[in-house]
Parts: sequence; C-alpha cells; structure tokens
Amino acid sequence: MEAISHRKLHVVSGSTNLALAEAIVASLGIKLGETNIGRFANGEIHCQFGESVRGVDIFILQSHGAFNGNSVNDSLMEQILMVDAARRASAQRITAVCPFFGYARQDRKAAGREPISAKLMSNLFNAAGASRIISVDLHSGQIQGFFDGPWDHLTAMPILCNYFDGLGDDLVVVSPDAGRVRVAERYAIASGADLAIVYKRRSATQKNSVEAREVVGDVKGRTCVLIDDMIDTGNTLVAAAEQLMERGAARVCAAATHGVFSKNAIEKLNNSVIEQIVVTDTLPLPPTKQFEKLQVLSVAPVIADAIGAVFGNTSVSDIFGGQNLS
Amino acid sequence: MEAISHRKLHVVSGSTNLALAEAIVASLGIKLGETNIGRFANGEIHCQFGESVRGVDIFILQSHGAFNGNSVNDSLMEQILMVDAARRASAQRITAVCPFFGYARQDRKAAGREPISAKLMSNLFNAAGASRIISVDLHSGQIQGFFDGPWDHLTAMPILCNYFDGLGDDLVVVSPDAGRVRVAERYAIASGADLAIVYKRRSATQKNSVEAREVVGDVKGRTCVLIDDMIDTGNTLVAAAEQLMERGAARVCAAATHGVFSKNAIEKLNNSVIEQIVVTDTLPLPPTKQFEKLQVLSVAPVIADAIGAVFGNTSVSDIFGGQNLS
Amino acid sequence: MEAISHRKLHVVSGSTNLALAEAIVASLGIKLGETNIGRFANGEIHCQFGESVRGVDIFILQSHGAFNGNSVNDSLMEQILMVDAARRASAQRITAVCPFFGYARQDRKAAGREPISAKLMSNLFNAAGASRIISVDLHSGQIQGFFDGPWDHLTAMPILCNYFDGLGDDLVVVSPDAGRVRVAERYAIASGADLAIVYKRRSATQKNSVEAREVVGDVKGRTCVLIDDMIDTGNTLVAAAEQLMERGAARVCAAATHGVFSKNAIEKLNNSVIEQIVVTDTLPLPPTKQFEKLQVLSVAPVIADAIGAVFGNTSVSDIFGGQNLS
Amino acid sequence: MEAISHRKLHVVSGSTNLALAEAIVASLGIKLGETNIGRFANGEIHCQFGESVRGVDIFILQSHGAFNGNSVNDSLMEQILMVDAARRASAQRITAVCPFFGYARQDRKAAGREPISAKLMSNLFNAAGASRIISVDLHSGQIQGFFDGPWDHLTAMPILCNYFDGLGDDLVVVSPDAGRVRVAERYAIASGADLAIVYKRRSATQKNSVEAREVVGDVKGRTCVLIDDMIDTGNTLVAAAEQLMERGAARVCAAATHGVFSKNAIEKLNNSVIEQIVVTDTLPLPPTKQFEKLQVLSVAPVIADAIGAVFGNTSVSDIFGGQNLS
Amino acid sequence: MEAISHRKLHVVSGSTNLALAEAIVASLGIKLGETNIGRFANGEIHCQFGESVRGVDIFILQSHGAFNGNSVNDSLMEQILMVDAARRASAQRITAVCPFFGYARQDRKAAGREPISAKLMSNLFNAAGASRIISVDLHSGQIQGFFDGPWDHLTAMPILCNYFDGLGDDLVVVSPDAGRVRVAERYAIASGADLAIVYKRRSATQKNSVEAREVVGDVKGRTCVLIDDMIDTGNTLVAAAEQLMERGAARVCAAATHGVFSKNAIEKLNNSVIEQIVVTDTLPLPPTKQFEKLQVLSVAPVIADAIGAVFGNTSVSDIFGGQNLS
Amino acid sequence: MEAISHRKLHVVSGSTNLALAEAIVASLGIKLGETNIGRFANGEIHCQFGESVRGVDIFILQSHGAFNGNSVNDSLMEQILMVDAARRASAQRITAVCPFFGYARQDRKAAGREPISAKLMSNLFNAAGASRIISVDLHSGQIQGFFDGPWDHLTAMPILCNYFDGLGDDLVVVSPDAGRVRVAERYAIASGADLAIVYKRRSATQKNSVEAREVVGDVKGRTCVLIDDMIDTGNTLVAAAEQLMERGAARVCAAATHGVFSKNAIEKLNNSVIEQIVVTDTLPLPPTKQFEKLQVLSVAPVIADAIGAVFGNTSVSDIFGGQNLS
Repeated sequence: MEAISHRKLHVVSGSTNLALAEAIVASLGIKLGETNIGRFANGEIHCQFGESVRGVDIFILQSHGAFNGNSVNDSLMEQILMVDAARRASAQRITAVCPFFGYARQDRKAAGREPISAKLMSNLFNAAGASRIISVDLHSGQIQGFFDGPWDHLTAMPILCNYFDGLGDDLVVVSPDAGRVRVAERYAIASGADLAIVYKRRSATQKNSVEAREVVGDVKGRTCVLIDDMIDTGNTLVAAAEQLMERGAARVCAAATHGVFSKNAIEKLNNSVIEQIVVTDTLPLPPTKQFEKLQVLSVAPVIADAIGAVFGNTSVSDIFGGQNLS
Repeated sequence: MEAISHRKLHVVSGSTNLALAEAIVASLGIKLGETNIGRFANGEIHCQFGESVRGVDIFILQSHGAFNGNSVNDSLMEQILMVDAARRASAQRITAVCPFFGYARQDRKAAGREPISAKLMSNLFNAAGASRIISVDLHSGQIQGFFDGPWDHLTAMPILCNYFDGLGDDLVVVSPDAGRVRVAERYAIASGADLAIVYKRRSATQKNSVEAREVVGDVKGRTCVLIDDMIDTGNTLVAAAEQLMERGAARVCAAATHGVFSKNAIEKLNNSVIEQIVVTDTLPLPPTKQFEKLQVLSVAPVIADAIGAVFGNTSVSDIFGGQNLS
Repeated sequence: MEAISHRKLHVVSGSTNLALAEAIVASLGIKLGETNIGRFANGEIHCQFGESVRGVDIFILQSHGAFNGNSVNDSLMEQILMVDAARRASAQRITAVCPFFGYARQDRKAAGREPISAKLMSNLFNAAGASRIISVDLHSGQIQGFFDGPWDHLTAMPILCNYFDGLGDDLVVVSPDAGRVRVAERYAIASGADLAIVYKRRSATQKNSVEAREVVGDVKGRTCVLIDDMIDTGNTLVAAAEQLMERGAARVCAAATHGVFSKNAIEKLNNSVIEQIVVTDTLPLPPTKQFEKLQVLSVAPVIADAIGAVFGNTSVSDIFGGQNLS
Repeated sequence: MEAISHRKLHVVSGSTNLALAEAIVASLGIKLGETNIGRFANGEIHCQFGESVRGVDIFILQSHGAFNGNSVNDSLMEQILMVDAARRASAQRITAVCPFFGYARQDRKAAGREPISAKLMSNLFNAAGASRIISVDLHSGQIQGFFDGPWDHLTAMPILCNYFDGLGDDLVVVSPDAGRVRVAERYAIASGADLAIVYKRRSATQKNSVEAREVVGDVKGRTCVLIDDMIDTGNTLVAAAEQLMERGAARVCAAATHGVFSKNAIEKLNNSVIEQIVVTDTLPLPPTKQFEKLQVLSVAPVIADAIGAVFGNTSVSDIFGGQNLS
Repeated sequence: MEAISHRKLHVVSGSTNLALAEAIVASLGIKLGETNIGRFANGEIHCQFGESVRGVDIFILQSHGAFNGNSVNDSLMEQILMVDAARRASAQRITAVCPFFGYARQDRKAAGREPISAKLMSNLFNAAGASRIISVDLHSGQIQGFFDGPWDHLTAMPILCNYFDGLGDDLVVVSPDAGRVRVAERYAIASGADLAIVYKRRSATQKNSVEAREVVGDVKGRTCVLIDDMIDTGNTLVAAAEQLMERGAARVCAAATHGVFSKNAIEKLNNSVIEQIVVTDTLPLPPTKQFEKLQVLSVAPVIADAIGAVFGNTSVSDIFGGQNLS
Repeated sequence: MEAISHRKLHVVSGSTNLALAEAIVASLGIKLGETNIGRFANGEIHCQFGESVRGVDIFILQSHGAFNGNSVNDSLMEQILMVDAARRASAQRITAVCPFFGYARQDRKAAGREPISAKLMSNLFNAAGASRIISVDLHSGQIQGFFDGPWDHLTAMPILCNYFDGLGDDLVVVSPDAGRVRVAERYAIASGADLAIVYKRRSATQKNSVEAREVVGDVKGRTCVLIDDMIDTGNTLVAAAEQLMERGAARVCAAATHGVFSKNAIEKLNNSVIEQIVVTDTLPLPPTKQFEKLQVLSVAPVIADAIGAVFGNTSVSDIFGGQNLS
C-alpha cells in the first residue's frame, strides 16, 4: 500500500503571547491550532491539543515571560509539556518557537557553583522531544550551540534599523555596557552610524563597588541610540543615558528587541532622560506596560516567514539577506 | 599518587519546604548546605551553592508545591537548576529528594493528545543530571519505572497507621474512589481493619455527568478512615464522607500523606462531617493552611533514614521491614 | 534531483500469532510481508526480511506469548531482532505492534531488589530502534509512559461490551481484585451496569496468608460478569466466581482481553462455576486451548484500523470515539 | 558527614551455569550472592536479589545457552532482567559476565535485511544498565567494539594449549574453515606447532552447493588438532577430520573453548574419526552431553582472576601475559 | 496548510577525492553541491555549504586519506564538520559516504590499553549527526555493527573479478596473510578459481620475530592473484609474491580495492616480482602515485547506484545480486 | 569481600606539548604516565598506554595546536583516541585537559550553513568517553555550556596581570576589537587600569570593506597593553597598535594567554611597533617561534593546582579566589 506523503503545517500557542501567535498565523494565512490549556487546583499545568496532530509539522509558540499571574517558569513548563504531548500524539516534527528565549542571560558560569541555565533549558527542550528551535535575537549567539538540532536564530535588526531612519542623520549607536559592544557595532554598521560605548569602571581594591560610568566615543550634540537585546529593569539604560546627556548628547533614544520591563522599569524609563524607546512584541505588553514614550513594532512577519521557510524547506538565511545573525 | 576515597554527605534544599529540610538534617546530625537562591528581576531563578560541592554525595531537597507566591513549576525549575549546578560543580552523585513529586497524577494519557507529565518530569531530572530520586508515596508505583536510575520510594504508611491505633478497634479503611482501592487495601491489611469503597456511578448515556456515589462494604455504626495519597481540593473526600455518614457511619476521619489543600480546601474540610484529618509535612503547611481538625505528622525521620542508608550503602527496604512500597 | 515522497505500508509478523497477523492484513487489504525466521542449532533466532524494506513504514507484529515450544522470551527476542534488522535495512519508521505486551504485570517494584520488567522491555524496544508501539489493553495505563515515542494504546472494550448485550439487563460488572476496580468501573459505565468488587482480606499478623475473599456490592440473583485484562492461571477468577455464587449470584460469566491460559487454566475454568468465558485473539489459541465455554472474538479489525490510521496520519483516538483508553 | 569509601564484591548467577558460578566464587573465596529466580505461570521470568546490593560492585554471571528446558533467549533475558534489578537497587557498578556470549556468530550482516544480532545483544546490555562485560573467547574480537564500556575479553587458550602438550611433538594445528585461520594461527604460534587449513571449495556457477573440502598444509602422518572457538553441531569438525584422515593424518583431535553440542552433535562426534575432544565449562554440560571422548577443562580460575582484577583495579591483561586476546 | 513532500538529492564532497565525487555525480546526472572549505591560519578547518540544504537528502563524500599536505585526520575532521553543518542547516537526512573508511584496521583491541579506533570513528559520525554511512569493502564486515543506523556496505568485487577474466584460466587466488583468507575465498568462489594461502610462521619462544612465510595450496606453474582489501606499504604483498615465485608460480598479480600506497610503496611495488597491480579509485591517486604496473578501475558507478537506491528507496543489495558483502 | 577504595592519579600527555606536561607533573610531584603514540604508514594514529590504567583518575593532556608537522586535527584526534583507549581500559574517570581548546573561535554560526565547531569538539570528547574537561581562557565562556559534564575553566589572568605590574602606573588596557571588550574590561579592573577600545568602522553600503580603525578612550602619552585571549596571525594586534601610536600612545605592549603565531606572525610582530609581547605556554613554542620581544610565562602551576584539586576533591574556584573566569 502506497500513499503520497503530505506535510501539514500546524501552529499552536502557549498562553503567554496569544496576540503575537494570532498575528503570526494571520500572516501565514492559517488558523491557530486548538488547545486546551488549564491549571489543576494545585497549579500543575494541564494541556491537550484540541484536534489530531498525527503526522503534522507542528510549531509550538511560547514567549518565556511572566504574564497574567504566571511566572516565566510556568511559561517554560507549559511549552515543554506541549512538546511532550505532541511527541506522544505522533507529530512528525516538533519545533519550539521561542520569540524570547528564557534564561538566556545565564549562558555561562559567571561564578563557580552556578548552573548554565540557558544550556539546561536547551536540554529540557531536547528531553521533551523538540527537534528544532526558532528564536529571535538571543542574548548571545553561542546559545545556538547549546542544542544539537537546527536552531533558526532570527533577528529584529532590520525592523529596528528601519525605525532609526526617522531619527535623523547624525546618529551614534551606543552600547550601554562593555559586554554588548559587538551588538551595537552590528547596528552601527547596518545603519551607517558611528559607535560609542558606555562602560562601568570599577576599582580593583573594592571589587564590587562601581566607581563610575565612562563614555568612549564622540557623542556631543548628537542623537544617541542606546541598543541592547532586551530592556529588563532599565537601570543600565537609564544610567547610560544620563551619562550620555552629561557628555553633551543632543538627545538619547533606546532600542531593544525584547521589552521585559520588570519591576518598576516603566516608571523609571518614563521619568528618564530617554526620549523614545522602541521594542518589539516578542514579549506580551499588556496595557499596564505601555506608555507614551514606547513604540512597539511587530516581529510577527519575520517569525511567520521563518515558519513558512522551515515548513516549505526554503532558506531561512535568505529572509535576512544571508546576514550574520549571531 | 594515591589517596583513600572519602564520601562526603551534603544536603541542600530549595526554598519550598525549608522546615522539613531542617528537620531532616537535624535528624542526620549535620547542617544544611549553604545556597544562594534568588530571582532575577523578570522572575528567572538564580541559584548558587555557597560552598564547594566537588566530589560530594549531594541530596537536593524540594517539595513540588506552591509556596510564598511561587508556583509548583517554580519549585520544580528551582530544583532542576540546582541539579544542573551540582553536575557542573563536580558533585560525585546527585540525588533529587522530592517528598511530594509534582505532576504525579498525570502518569498516563487519560485522553488522547495529552502529555504524560510525570514521565516528562522524570525526563527533566534525568536531562539535568540527577542520578537517583527519593520520594514519598507516589500517586502510583509505576512512576518509579519512569526513571532508569534508582528511585527510592518511601512510604508514610507506618507513621499514619500508628496514628490509627488511637482511633479505636472497629475501624473501616475506606477508599474514596474506585482507583484508590489498592492503597486502601494496603492500609486495611497493615491495620487489621476492614475495607470499604466509595465509588461514583455514572450513566452510560450521559457520559460525564456523575449520577451518584455508592458505598460497597459495611460501615454502619463504625469509625471510617478515608485514605488517599493526597488531599488536594478535598472535594472527593468530603463527598465520600457525607455518603458514609448517610450510610450510618459512626464517624469519619481522613488520612493522607500529602496535604496539598488547594483553593478553598481548608474551609471545605473544616465545615465538613469529617472529624479529624491527618497528613504529613511533605508539603509546607503555612499557618494559613493549619486548622483545628488537622494533625500534621513529620516524615523527616523516614527521609533522613533513607538518605543515611543511601549515603552509607545500607538497605533502604529494611527501613520499612522489606515491605512493598508500591 | 527531486522526487515526490511516497509512503509504503509494510506489515510483517513474528511467528507467535500468524492467524491474527493474517486477519489484520486481510482487513487492510494487503499481503503480509515475507520473512525468513528460523533457529540456529543452538536455539539462537535467525531472521531476515524476504524483500526490500528500504524506506517503508514497517509494522512488526508479535504477541508476547509462548507458542509451539517457544517461550515468551523467545517471542520477545524474535520481535526485537526484527526491529534491529529493519533499522539496518533502512526502514523509514518502525512500529512494534504487540497485541499482548509481555511482562506488563511487572510494571513497578512490588518489592525491593526487583526489576521493573515492563520498563526494561520498553527500553529494549527503544534500544533496538523501534520508534513507536501499538498494543491492546495494557495491564496499566502508566506503561505507556515507559516509552518516549508514541504508544498507541488500543482497547478491546467495545468488542467485549458488545458481547455483554446478549447477557440480559440486570448485569453486575465485578472486579475480581482490589487492584482492578478501575477497569471494572470503566466497563460498568460503558455497559450501564452496576459494579461489585471481590477482594482478599488478609490478617495483619500473618502477612501473606489470605484469610478470606469478601464481596462488596449487591450481586444477589443477578448475572455477574467478572472482568480483567487477562486470564492467566484462572485462579483468581475461579475463586471470585465461587464467592459470587455463595453470595447468591444467579450466574457468573467472565471476560478479558488476553487469554493467556497458563498451566491447567483450561481444566480449572472448564470445571468451575463460570458459565461462559470470552476473550480476544491477542494471544494464539491453539486447539488445545479451546473449550466449549470459551468464546473468542477478534481484535484484528481494531488493530488494522489503528495501523491504517498511523500509516495515513489520521486520528487513532477517533477509532474509539475519543474515549479514555488508560 | 564523611565516610571512607569501601568497595564490596558481590557475585550472583543466573540459572544456566551454576556449577561454573560456584567454582568461580570458590576460587575467589567468597559465597555466591542470594537470588530468587523463578517463572510466572506464563513463562515470564521473575528475579529478585536475596540481599541488599546497594553500593556493591556486582558481577552477574550467565552463560547464554539452553539448559533445563530454557532456551538461549531465556538465559539472555534472565541476565538482562538481573542487570535492570541491580541498577534499580543501587548497585554501584554492574558487570555482565558472559562466559559464552550468545548470538556472537551473527556479528555482521552475512546478507541483506538481517540484524547484527551480536550488536543488538550489546545494546540490550547497555540499555539495561550494564557498565562492563567480561566474556571468554568471543567468536570475533571486533565484538568488543560493539560496546562502549570496558569489555574484558578473556581467553581459554593457555588452558587448552597446556592440554596439547600431552599430544606429542609433531603437532599440526588445523583450522576447519577459511574464516577461522587467524585463531588457528594463534594457537599454532603459542604451541610451536605447524598450521594447516581445511576449506570448502564451491563452484561459482552453482553458488550454494559445496563441491569439496580441500586441505592446504602438510598433515601426513601427523597428529592434527582441529581448533575452533566453539563446537555446535559438530558437522564442520567431523567433515574436516575425515578429510584430514583421507590426506593421511595419523590421528585427529579437536579443541574448542565452548561446547555447545546442539542437536545430535554428541552422537555424531562419538561416531566420528576424532579421537579426543576437549572443551571448557563455559557452557553447562549436563550428564547427557558428556561422553568418553570428551575432556572438560575449567575456565573458573581465569574468570575468577579477572573478576578479582576488575574489583581490585589491577591489570587484566597481566593474567594473560599481556597477550593479544582478539 | 498542506504540501506534497518532495525529496531532494544533494551530493557534496570534502576536498580529498574530488575526482571520484565528480565521477559519481556525473553518473547520477546531477551537479556537485557547492561548498566553501578552507583553513584558518592555525589549520582549523572552516566549511560552509554554498547553497541552502534545508530539507534535502544530503550525501557527504570523503575518502579518509592523506592528500595535498592534509593528513587522514584532517580528512576525517573535514567530513565530520560538514555533517555538523548539515544538521544545523536542517538537512533532512545525512549520509556520510566514505569510499575508504579510515582507521578500519583498528577494529578490535589487538593488545590491552588500545582504543578501538574504527568504533570511535563510527561514534564520531554518530555524535556529529550522520544517520547512515555508505562505504566500500570495509576491512572487516563487523565494522558495520559499530553503527546503529543503516550502513550500506558496497563491494568492488564484481569490478575486480571482471578484471581477472583477462588473466587466463588457471588462476589461483592467494590470501597474503592468515587473517585475510575469508576474503580470498570469496574471490576464489566468485571467479571459479583455486585458493592458496601465504602465512607467517613464528616461533613461540621468540614471540615477535617472524621465522618464515609458508605457502599452503598448489601454485606451481600457475597465475597467482594476491587479493587484499587494501595495499598500504606493500610489504606483505611483495614478500608473499616472492614466496609464491619461489614455490614455482608462473606469475603473480595483485588486486585490492583501496590503493593507500604509503611511504615508498610505489617504488617497492614497481621493483617487485609482481607483474600487475589493480586497485580502484576509492582513494585519490595523484600522478606521483601512478606507475606503469598499476591499473585503476573506478567505483564511481557502484557508489552512484547506491546513492540512487538510497535516495529512491530501492534495494541496495540488488546492485550486487543480493550477494553477501561482509 | 570488601576493600577500601583508593583513588590513583594518573597524568598522560599527547605529543603536542610535552614540555608543558612535564612541567605540570613536576609541579604535582609525580611522573608522566607512559604512552606509546605512533603513526601507521598512512598517517592513522596509533596509541596505547604503557601501563595499566584500570581504576585510575586519568588526566589526558593535549594542546590543540600544530606541531612537528602534525596539524591541529591530528592533535585533537590523538587526544580523542586516548580518551577512547582509557575508557576501554577501565579508567575510573577521564578528564581531557586542553590548555588551548581548538576550534573555540567557531563557537556560534557566524553565517548560515556553517558548523558550530567548538560544540562539535565538545560532542566528540563526550562521544569518546571524557567525563570532564579542563581548559585555560576559552575564547568565550559560553563554550563551557557545550559540555554537560564539569568543565573547569582556568585563567592565566593572575599570571599576566602580575607581569603588567612591571609596566609602570599609567597603564591603559586596550581591547583590539569590539568583540573582546569584556575581556579587556576584566583585565582593566584586575589591574586598576583604564580601558580603551580599538574598533573597526565599516561602511554600511559596501558591507565587507573595512573603512578605518577607530580608538575610543584616552591613550595619549600612556603605556597601552593590548589584551586578547590568543595571538594568531597578529594582524589585528599590529593594526591596533599602529592606530594607538597614531593617537599618541607612549608605547604599546601586548598580552595574550595563547600564542598561536600562525603563518608569518612572528615576522610581523617582530617588525611592528609593539614593544613587548607576553604569552603563556599553553601552546608549544619551538625555537623557531621565539623572538626577542616575546616573553613566555608558564601556566603549569595553575593547571597542576587544578588537577590536584580535581583529584583531591577540593575547590577549583579557590585557586582563583572565587573569581569569575568566564
């Protein structure tokens, strides 16, 4: 008995970022797969697919963020459980789509006796049965190497750079931290802008007390765009922006792929010298996290294109003109 | 260069059930290992051991429960991260001690397209580097088979049975549900008591609507002890107890190893016909979860004995007189 | 060079239950794949596929039973060797179809220092290269969790329940043992019948000596159907049936998916108070195992449907109306 | 808490070759570990260790042969189940001791669509949790490479060569087959004897019909010792011996490590021109397999030395003077 | 969203044997896939595919030989890196095609404390993500068992035997060594020729000093063809040929699949009594390795047929008439 | 039978950096383990341990560099083969000590269709059986996460910083590249020095053509120390130094852990404006690679301390005062 093989595209979403999921499937011209996701009384997650996934090419979306009273760990576990369910329900290929990949900052041992949490997360996806991962602007490119299957690493850089165009000509791209210079450099090159760096100078004798922030590069009278992969508490950005203004910057904007906005970040940024902040929708931004200075751009088309290319076996690098994403 | 090998016992705890952890190490006559466990601004867990664990025989304790605003998934992820940290810090052998093992009720596919969550949790511990597991009164003995390393499955039965002795002679052990009869049978045999069963009769035509609870076995005028592995919402227990009283039971008590007490379980149990409830401290019971009818017994000595036996390579079955724990 | 992908269905069988295999392929409308299975002089099994299996979706059938002088271990090893051969011969996907899955009763550690044999069998299939398993009415649903690939768990319940219809209206479904109540409950619900339970009462002081069998539930003057997943020696069934007759049952029948009939089971059952016994053909029933009281129903259509659904990537749960099989 | 590490030697045996097991432990000066090995009614094996094996260095002995109505597969499954039990019972290190390693002749694909059964057996031991293997005179040295843990490959050559000394000076070691020449060569060198080869000449046109056996080498008037790793049906040996006598050999003896003696081998050998046959006790030789021409030497001291060296972490190669065993 | 599945054949080559690669793709009627393979300044290899390989059925060719100043290890590492790149670039299936498989002679522990290098190479391919291997005339058939995926083992025997036909009727196939008799026997049968064996006789007392080469079999006045899987230094062949001439052979030719020709092999063979030498192009033969006596036949059609059969899911054994390749 | 467990330290070395190996064992007060490492005629590596390694805690040293006509791949393969040999020879624990870890710069996908070579190398060590890795100053800390066992990541920073003390007070630590700023920052903090950065400014329109090197930070009239993990071709360093001199630096020195010195690096550096260059002996520096400006410091004490700590189960972080090495 013979039959021609068909591939079926199936996209489902965890509960963290349904708005992004809906935008992605709209862009693909399909409907989001049905799921029943709930909590047992004691908080254990229960999930079930609402229709057969036998033989499908399934993409399971989840942003690893806190949302609606659920923690980032809840969001991770939800996705991992869905991967296990898909495997046992005979999905043919399982791709975990993680627009924001959790624990990415713990990508090495910053001190002894620590976990390498980003590697552990990769291992958990592998243990659950994911055969590939798609994510956007990882904290470091090396994280791709934590997984032995294919990991399509997308970037929001074209979207953000496009936004820079409206900021005038005399732009300086600024790294807020010594460790982020390579990313800033990439943006500077892509936008034809200059580069500056803010870095923290510490004293050797009192090891952990920060002495002062220094600026290297020419910022006087110019528009500075602080660039980072994510904005979490906003502390680094705000301090860097103040330093830039002190050094005579004309104005300071900030751009990042991931808008985490933890704790009182919104308030701090709102009250800061930063004029404008632009992020994407890789993480859910409920009304309480939105404020006037903030501009949110969507990565849905980029993710939809990548899913389409993975499903259709066409090149993903081509989406980005073959550019280095790492 | 030669050296005599020493084994070093090291016990650390996640943040869910520190009271139990302290009781266990006190029983072992050692101090709890230092840990620094915190949260990053966005809720990602950070953990680090406070002292070298190189070459030690480490036992990492965590009850998989919600506590202090953290979810059951937070408690699981905390322990899994500690396992990863221990592996990278060269611990010689890593045992995950889970007095209450989370997701144990999802131990099979109750319907299509579901995960087998308890198996997934085992896989996550394995992926993180745990070489063995210790837990108390698993929801089903088969869960032991979800892990290919040694899984020491302890039981609180002797502690609970001992408590029954004070309840008089004419005891009936009652299973609150058709699926828990084997456990009740084990308690009945261990206490020399009779067995009764409450079960739900459903109509075949309207599949999911429960028609009525039935009682099989003689309960008239006798002291009934409802037995289960855990008390979660308390719904089943309360309904079963009412049924027993309707059938003429003299009084109804309830015993279980794990006191989950989700949602308004406390209120419901307090207002019920159940006279007394006894559980152990496998899960943290903050003051808000304690009430007059509730008696809490400690499993710390049992877990301490098991850790001692695992460390000292003596028999764990002997702790329970070689009895069948599954 | 491009080619459209075709999937090819290929079904082969080990030597234990060729009659069932022939019925399955007949139902699928295909021919059984050729195999050469033999024994070397010292009893080592030799197997070879008689035609190319490169790129096929192969289903390797074997019931884990003793047959024609071969032991249950011979039947297991035969199937595992065929899985290895299929892998090395480049089959695209390998499904082990085990109508009766051996060692399923050893699904947990009933005592210390024992294997969990059912888990080991899963591991052996995994080690040999099987990517999925199909079986009928496992001894416990948790066994599905012993394997990390898909495990389609079929049930003969609709076939057996259909048979019950001819037994009259006032039916009582009886669990012969405290550990099998959940299965009996499922049958009771499906047939709209009442439930009763026979259980063994043991004394606590002389732990292993059975005192007496008790019956819970109302059986007087009614038709009782003892239900179990398998009939092995028949001892439990016969003793339960006697107990039911003593309690006034009008008549006792018995139904089970798997007819193991070890030792002198046939004789015992033939001489018992049980009027009728119904099983399916998951295990081979040679003429010597057939007797007048015995009715054998075929699961071939159910397995054929499942193979068809797996091959065609349509839902397997739909075969059972989405019912809980575990 | 610290403790000095102790290693404990524990040797247990499957049921196939208890005589050898007893000889080995006697040679080590210890007692055989207690085991309860039985069969369930349907032939499934049940095993349990009779005492705690927690933390021990366990050696699980089994010869893969048919014995007492059990097949070679029964003997394999028995040992694999014991390995699983040892792992779950927390043995520290598990060594499968297989004096005769089953399925060793199927060590490559002799034709398409076959398993590589010897590799599969290695995989099964690995899947069950064995961390090392000890065996005697494997059919081919490459089989060692089928396992990624240590595989101590012992040889009975010194024992057999010692026996040759009594056969006189003008010895010719004869390979009964083109594929066994390397082994014969090794024996010839070790005994300072000449080498001869019997081989089957086949016609290319009628591929599978053996035309004739040829002898290469000078055997006239001399004592020939046919050498092989095992004697199974004896067909090859008897035919080779006849050929040697036709070519004028003075007398023909035969030596092999493993005495399989399948089918009517005993009768055939007894009636053959072979004067004397010597094998070792790697396989059980019940009285029915013993006959006057047969001399049985014990490998117990060799295996005991190897177990002692593995336990004591001293060199195993030294037992054989560093000689190439493969 | 559904799409018909297509399979795409993609063949790329490492840098060792581009001539063979070009011949293979020409035979398949396709073009060789683009690759950029280079060296970093310190000799680390860099490789990248020149076009998308997403979803393709990729065959990565490399002969494990020294070429153009690169060592055999460089050739291995190059291929393993390409396998890793293909996996991360989402190739659907990765086949390592190794016309000459390196380290194959180290297929067992010839002495204690050695690696089993051929097994390690298999493990490295597995670790990098190869799902199958194709190679020609492995040093021993057991090496196939070192890999748990499919390993298509091709043979150049038909090509070489065809060449023998021109050598006249009274052919003797000669094994140059006791360990290669089975291969010679296979050639003898296939060509309807007689068999002879040259073997080294060593003294037992002075273990490693070779005493003398002996010839078994009738070679007087006949054409001898020495046969081996590879010609490395040529020492064994030249010595065996001299011995054959001493025993009266009419003339001596030599045939082997793999022409390694290490050190001064070319010079030695050119000056030897061997009249003609025939090998295939599994290893690159630069002009410096070619000499008048040497005839090189191409295995490209055999490998192309195998790739075509693997891609098209037709039988590979059929290419060789179902013959035993091991 | 019981025995007290002893651990035995055993250190062996590949052939690349014997001088460092000898310095390490001298520092540990032991002798280097005997090894026989050679090449077969065709360049395949052969290795064997010269004494029993059964039960030892073995450390296998190899710097991944080209040396004596062997390539970096030869050095890697040599070490991986030694790991395999150690595993099969029953070493208890195997640590790969890689003072310079090869392929570390390929730690992410810099472009599509590339391997992540550093991850692959980790996988190869894992596949061969290494249970832990020790290395010095990895190119990025994330590489530690490529391995799931313990990876002790040592640093030569204290040794190099100590050297800086002699360079006067007004030191500026300079990163030669935007991607190395974090490392330079760490050195600046540790030495209480200022930080400057040289970076390449590229035009966005002509993407790959470097426009100019820029300097950020104050270098006028000061001593600049360019810092990097390794010096390969020296191109970046020399260009950066020229830029610093143009910007008015008083003098420029350079420091790096690994002296790769590929191609004509020696000549280039010798002729450059750089006054002094300091590296360590992680890579072999034959006389041809030594020149007047070059100062070589030894990391042998650091590695010896780490091996001692791993063997003795004491803290490795303590060797570096608990400092962040990544």
